[in-house]
Amino acid sequence: MIVILQPDVTEQQIDHILGKAKEIGLRTNVSRGTERTVIGFIGPEDVLRSIPLEVWPGVEQVIPVLAPYKLVSREFREENSVIKVGDVEVGGKRLVIMAGPCSIENKESLLRTARTLKKNEGVSLILRGGAFKPRTSPYDFQGMGEEGLKILKEVSAETGIPSVSEVMDPRDVELSAKYIDAFQIGARNMQNFSLLKEVGKTQKPILLKRGMSATVKDLLMSAEYIMAKGNFNVMLCERGIRTFETATRNTFDINAIPVIKQLSHLPVIADPSHGTGRWGLVGSVARAAVAAGCDGLMIEVHEKPEEALSDGPQSLTLENFASLFKELKAVAKAVGKDI
Amino acid sequence: MIVILQPDVTEQQIDHILGKAKEIGLRTNVSRGTERTVIGFIGPEDVLRSIPLEVWPGVEQVIPVLAPYKLVSREFREENSVIKVGDVEVGGKRLVIMAGPCSIENKESLLRTARTLKKNEGVSLILRGGAFKPRTSPYDFQGMGEEGLKILKEVSAETGIPSVSEVMDPRDVELSAKYIDAFQIGARNMQNFSLLKEVGKTQKPILLKRGMSATVKDLLMSAEYIMAKGNFNVMLCERGIRTFETATRNTFDINAIPVIKQLSHLPVIADPSHGTGRWGLVGSVARAAVAAGCDGLMIEVHEKPEEALSDGPQSLTLENFASLFKELKAVAKAVGKDI
Amino acid sequence: MIVILQPDVTEQQIDHILGKAKEIGLRTNVSRGTERTVIGFIGPEDVLRSIPLEVWPGVEQVIPVLAPYKLVSREFREENSVIKVGDVEVGGKRLVIMAGPCSIENKESLLRTARTLKKNEGVSLILRGGAFKPRTSPYDFQGMGEEGLKILKEVSAETGIPSVSEVMDPRDVELSAKYIDAFQIGARNMQNFSLLKEVGKTQKPILLKRGMSATVKDLLMSAEYIMAKGNFNVMLCERGIRTFETATRNTFDINAIPVIKQLSHLPVIADPSHGTGRWGLVGSVARAAVAAGCDGLMIEVHEKPEEALSDGPQSLTLENFASLFKELKAVAKAVGKDI
Amino acid sequence: MIVILQPDVTEQQIDHILGKAKEIGLRTNVSRGTERTVIGFIGPEDVLRSIPLEVWPGVEQVIPVLAPYKLVSREFREENSVIKVGDVEVGGKRLVIMAGPCSIENKESLLRTARTLKKNEGVSLILRGGAFKPRTSPYDFQGMGEEGLKILKEVSAETGIPSVSEVMDPRDVELSAKYIDAFQIGARNMQNFSLLKEVGKTQKPILLKRGMSATVKDLLMSAEYIMAKGNFNVMLCERGIRTFETATRNTFDINAIPVIKQLSHLPVIADPSHGTGRWGLVGSVARAAVAAGCDGLMIEVHEKPEEALSDGPQSLTLENFASLFKELKAVAKAVGKDI
Repeated sequence: MIVILQPDVTEQQIDHILGKAKEIGLRTNVSRGTERTVIGFIGPEDVLRSIPLEVWPGVEQVIPVLAPYKLVSREFREENSVIKVGDVEVGGKRLVIMAGPCSIENKESLLRTARTLKKNEGVSLILRGGAFKPRTSPYDFQGMGEEGLKILKEVSAETGIPSVSEVMDPRDVELSAKYIDAFQIGARNMQNFSLLKEVGKTQKPILLKRGMSATVKDLLMSAEYIMAKGNFNVMLCERGIRTFETATRNTFDINAIPVIKQLSHLPVIADPSHGTGRWGLVGSVARAAVAAGCDGLMIEVHEKPEEALSDGPQSLTLENFASLFKELKAVAKAVGKDI
Repeated sequence: MIVILQPDVTEQQIDHILGKAKEIGLRTNVSRGTERTVIGFIGPEDVLRSIPLEVWPGVEQVIPVLAPYKLVSREFREENSVIKVGDVEVGGKRLVIMAGPCSIENKESLLRTARTLKKNEGVSLILRGGAFKPRTSPYDFQGMGEEGLKILKEVSAETGIPSVSEVMDPRDVELSAKYIDAFQIGARNMQNFSLLKEVGKTQKPILLKRGMSATVKDLLMSAEYIMAKGNFNVMLCERGIRTFETATRNTFDINAIPVIKQLSHLPVIADPSHGTGRWGLVGSVARAAVAAGCDGLMIEVHEKPEEALSDGPQSLTLENFASLFKELKAVAKAVGKDI
Repeated sequence: MIVILQPDVTEQQIDHILGKAKEIGLRTNVSRGTERTVIGFIGPEDVLRSIPLEVWPGVEQVIPVLAPYKLVSREFREENSVIKVGDVEVGGKRLVIMAGPCSIENKESLLRTARTLKKNEGVSLILRGGAFKPRTSPYDFQGMGEEGLKILKEVSAETGIPSVSEVMDPRDVELSAKYIDAFQIGARNMQNFSLLKEVGKTQKPILLKRGMSATVKDLLMSAEYIMAKGNFNVMLCERGIRTFETATRNTFDINAIPVIKQLSHLPVIADPSHGTGRWGLVGSVARAAVAAGCDGLMIEVHEKPEEALSDGPQSLTLENFASLFKELKAVAKAVGKDI
Repeated sequence: MIVILQPDVTEQQIDHILGKAKEIGLRTNVSRGTERTVIGFIGPEDVLRSIPLEVWPGVEQVIPVLAPYKLVSREFREENSVIKVGDVEVGGKRLVIMAGPCSIENKESLLRTARTLKKNEGVSLILRGGAFKPRTSPYDFQGMGEEGLKILKEVSAETGIPSVSEVMDPRDVELSAKYIDAFQIGARNMQNFSLLKEVGKTQKPILLKRGMSATVKDLLMSAEYIMAKGNFNVMLCERGIRTFETATRNTFDINAIPVIKQLSHLPVIADPSHGTGRWGLVGSVARAAVAAGCDGLMIEVHEKPEEALSDGPQSLTLENFASLFKELKAVAKAVGKDI
C-alpha cells in the first residue's frame, strides 16, 4: 500500500502514521519529495485494506499495490483452467456454444430446439434455458420454475447435451442442482453475495455473468467469493455493460475478453444476445468475440422468436444460428481454435 | 403501444400485424405518412408488452405509451405516501435523518453514537447500522450477523430510536424482522427479485436503494415488485450512480429527487455518504438533497472514522454531524420543511 | 511518480529503469516488498509525464503523485478568485444569476426579457443569449451570428446588465470581443484547444462549460490551457454529464461543486437548464446547486418557451423565474451567501 | 412525429394543438385510448423538430418517427460508399490499414516506419501521423505543426503511401490540405461544428472519429454536417467510448460497427489503439473489429514505443504489427474480405 501525504502534513502526523504501522506490524519506506512525502507500507495488503487510511490525518491518497483478488488471478495459476460441464470442456482449445431459448416454455419446443442445434456439425454444445427468470417487471412471465428444470433435465438426457440454467435464490440451489449440469448467476445477481456463497459450497460449474455496471475487477472479486468457498469451477461471462448508448440494449465490452484473459486463468464466455439486445447484431458481435479470444459463446435461439415468452427481439431462429455457426467455425479456425 | 413500420413494409405484413392484433382483442389505428406508416395499438399494454413486436416482419420500432409501473405511480395515488418507521413519519412535512455507523461493531459504541445523535435538537431520527454487510471482497469484514441485530434492537429499545438495517438474503427476512423496524435493500440487491418478493410479503417498511446502474424507471419497477406483493410501505433511496467520473466513489444523481417526486407518491431518501464516498463532500450534497426536496437523509457517522471496520472514509464524526445538522435545519426551513 | 514493477521483473530491468532515471536527472527510492518492488521517482513530474514509463520492460503500473494542473489549483492560490464581468463580481459572497434565452431571436424580445429579469429584487445579473449556436443537426437554427451579438450589446447597454455569449470558432473571438463582456466556451468545445488558446490570449472573463464526458480533472486541465496563456479570469460551469439515465437530458453532477471548490480557487457556476433538460426540474436542481455552494447559476428563460427557436423544453417563463428567484434567495441565505 | 398527451389533458388543449398543427400545414391523426390520447403529426419532420412541442400544454411525451439524418443514411443510398484516399479505396472489399506513429517526430523515423509497414505483404496502407496534437495538458508536446506536415508529405511521396492527419482548427484546413490526402477530425472535435463545416467545403476525404460520449446517432449527425456542405467523402471511426470501466482507457464499442453498417452507407474504421489504450490489447480488439465487419483499422505503431513523444503505451512495435497483420489477414479472409 502506498500512501501519498498532504502537502501540509506535519511531522507529528507522519509519526502518528508510522507509529500505527509499527503497531500493526508493518514495515514502512518514507520517500520525501519536493512537493509530497510518500510512505510505502510493506506487509500483507489484506490487513491494510481493512484500515481506513484515507481518513488518517495528513493523508491525501491511498494506492494499493496488489490486486484484491487471489484465487482467480494468473499469478495464482498460470495455465488456463478447463472446466467440465457434463462432457463438454470449457476453456480448452475448442470453442463451446451455449445455446437455447431465453425461457423454457414447453418440452416439445425445447426438444426440437436441442435436436436441431445438435445437427450443426462440429458443435461443442451446452443447452441453456431459463426456469427462474429475473424480469424487470413483476407482471412479466417469471419462468416455469421446477417444472421447467424437469423439462430441461429430460431434454438433456434424451439428447445427451449438458445443461446450464439460472439460479436466483439461495434456497433454490439444492433443488436446481438435481436437474442441471451448471449454474448460471445472472448479471443482476453478480453481487448477491449470499447466492455466491451458496453455489460456492457446491462443486457444480458456475457461469458467472458480469453485472451491468460491474468493472472487470468487480467481476473477478465475485468469482473470488465463489472460489473462496472451495468451488473452483467458475466460468466468467461478458454480456454487455450499461453506457449512455441507446442504439443497443447494452454495450458489449469486447476489451474485457483480452483483459480478463490477462488477469485470470478462468474461461471467458461471451453473450452477444444480451450484449446487443437485437438479433440482427448478434452475428457480428459473436464473430468478434471469437476473434478476440473468448472460450465460448452463449446465444439465445428460439424456434419462433415472434412467439417467444421473453427476449424474442434478441433471439436467433434455428436457421440463422446454423449459418452463423458456419461463420464462427471459420473465424475460430483463423484464430487457432479447434472446432 | 405505438408501432412504427419499416419504409419497405408490405401490405401483407401490415395485414399480418392487424390480424394478430385482432386475435388478441386489440383495437388498432393506422396512420399512413409519406415516409412511414404508424400503427397505434389500443388496449391493455400489459398484454402488448409480453409480445415481442420488435421481431414481427415489417416492424421498425415499438414505443410504449404507458409507464410499466402502476402502484408506485402518482397516477395511482396522487398525494404523498407517509410511511411510519416506529414513531417516525417518513414522507411528511418533517425531514427525517437515518444515521449511524456503516457496520454495527459493539454495543457500547452504538449506544454512545445513538445517544449523541439524539441530542441534536429537533432531529427526527432513525438509527442505521449494518449487521449483514455486502462487501466487494470475501476477505473483508462481513458484519456481525444476528449478534449485530440483537445489539441494534437493544440500543433501539434503550434510546427509543427506531432502527433500519440491511437484509441481503431471503432466508434472513424472518429473523431480521424480529429485531428491526425497517428493512434496507441495498443497491447490489435492487434487482434481487427473490428478496424483493420476500420482503414484499411482510408489512415492515422498506428502504429500497437504487442500484448503481439502475435508471429511475428500474428503481420504480423494483418498488413495484414489493408493492405487488402487498407491502406498500416503500421508501426509495438515491445513493449515487456509476459514471465515468473517478473523483468521487459514485455520482449522486440530484435530478432523480424531483424526477421521482413527479412520477411517484413514495418518499425519497438521499444517501450522500455513498453518493460521494468522501466525508468532506457529504455536507454539501446533504444540503443540496434537502434543497432539492428529499424527504430524508441517510448519513453514515462513526465515533472514530479512523477505526471504523467499514466505510470509514465516508463517515462523519459525531461533531461534524452536529454542525451539519444545524445547516440542514436552515436549508430545510428555507424550502418549507418542518424540522 | 510511483512505478510498481511486475512480479517477475529482473534485476537487469530494474537497473535499466534506474539508469534511465539517472540519465534524466531524477532521484529514485526503491522499496522491495514480498510480492512487488516499487520505485519512487523524485523530481519534476512534468518531465516524467512525457515519458511512456508504462511500456518500459518490467513495469506493471505507473501512478502520478501530483495533479497535472497548477494554475487552477488551490495549492497555487489559496483564496477564492473573484472574476469581474462588467460590474458583477463572480466568486464573491453574492450569488450571481446568468439568465436569458438560449438563442437571441430579436431585439424587442431580448429587451423585454432583460428588463423583466432586472426587476427581481436583489438580483446580481448577467444576461445570456446565444448568437452562434452549436446544434446537433445542420438543419436546425444556427443562431443569428453577428446580428445577434449587436442586439445583445444594445440590450446590455440600454439595461446596464453585462453580457455573456458563446464563441465557437477561434476566428470569431476578436469579433465577439467587441460586443460582449464574457465569453462562453460550450460543453462540446471544452477540449477545442485552438479555441481555448485563442480566448486565453484575451483578458475577457471566460465561462468554461464542462464537456458531457469530461471528468472534473479534464475540466481543470482545460481551464489550465486558458490560464497558461495568461488569462486568469476563468469561471467553471457544471452543466450535467452523460450517463445511462434517460429520464433527464443529462445528469447534473452535484458532487462536482464541492469537489471543484476543494481543488480549485476558480468560481463555479451551475447550469440546471442543461443539467436536467426539462424546465419542471430546473427549480429543484437550482436550489440544490446553491445549497451545495455554487457561486452562481446559469438559467435559460424565455418569454414564451412554446415558441422558442431552441431549447424551449428547458426554458423557464419569466414568471416561473421570478418565483424561483425568491426561493433561491432563501436557500442562499440559509447557506450564508449574500443576495 | 407522435405526441402522447397527459392523462388529464383537456379538450381545449387538444384543440389548441390541432389548431397549431393546421396553422403550420400538418395533417393529424388522433387516437383515443382508455388511458392516453395520442396524436400523430403527418408532414415534414424537419419543421416539427424545430417546434418545442414538449412544452405545449397537455403534452406528456414527443416521439420522432424518422431519424434526424438523411444524407448519411442507407435510405438515402443503399449500396456502400467507397472513398478514395490517394489510390487506396476505403469501403470496398479490401481491408484498409491506417498505421503510423501518434505524433510525427522526425523524418528519418517516419520514413523508416513507412517503409517497414509497406513490406507487409498485401497491405492496403494509409500512413497516419499527427502534426497538430490535441493534448489534455497544455504542458505536453503539442505536435510539430506545419513542419510535421511537410515531413508527412515527403515521406508519403517517397513511399507512395497516401496520408491522413488530424486538423484541429478551421484556420489550418487550407494549409493542411496542401500536404495530406485525408483529414482526420479527432474525437474531441466531433462536435466542433465550425471545423466540420470548413472541411465540408473541401472535397478531401475525412476520417471522422466518434466523440468519447457521442452516441452513434450523434456521430451520424456530425457526418451529416460535413455532407450537408457538399463533401460526401466521409469515413466514420469507432475509437472507444467513455464508461465506468477503468481497466482500459476507453471501452471499444464493437456493437457500433454493425449498427453503423445497418444505418449508413459510409465506411467504418476501427481504432483499437485508442479503443483500449494498451498495446497488449490492441491485437485482440483489432481482430474482433475485422470479424465484426469494419472496413479498415487505424493502428498506432512506433519504432520504439519506449521513446515515443505521445501515446507510447498504446503503440505497437513494427514487429508486433507485422505479426498482427498476418492474423488480420486470416480473420479478414474468414469473413469474406479480400486482403
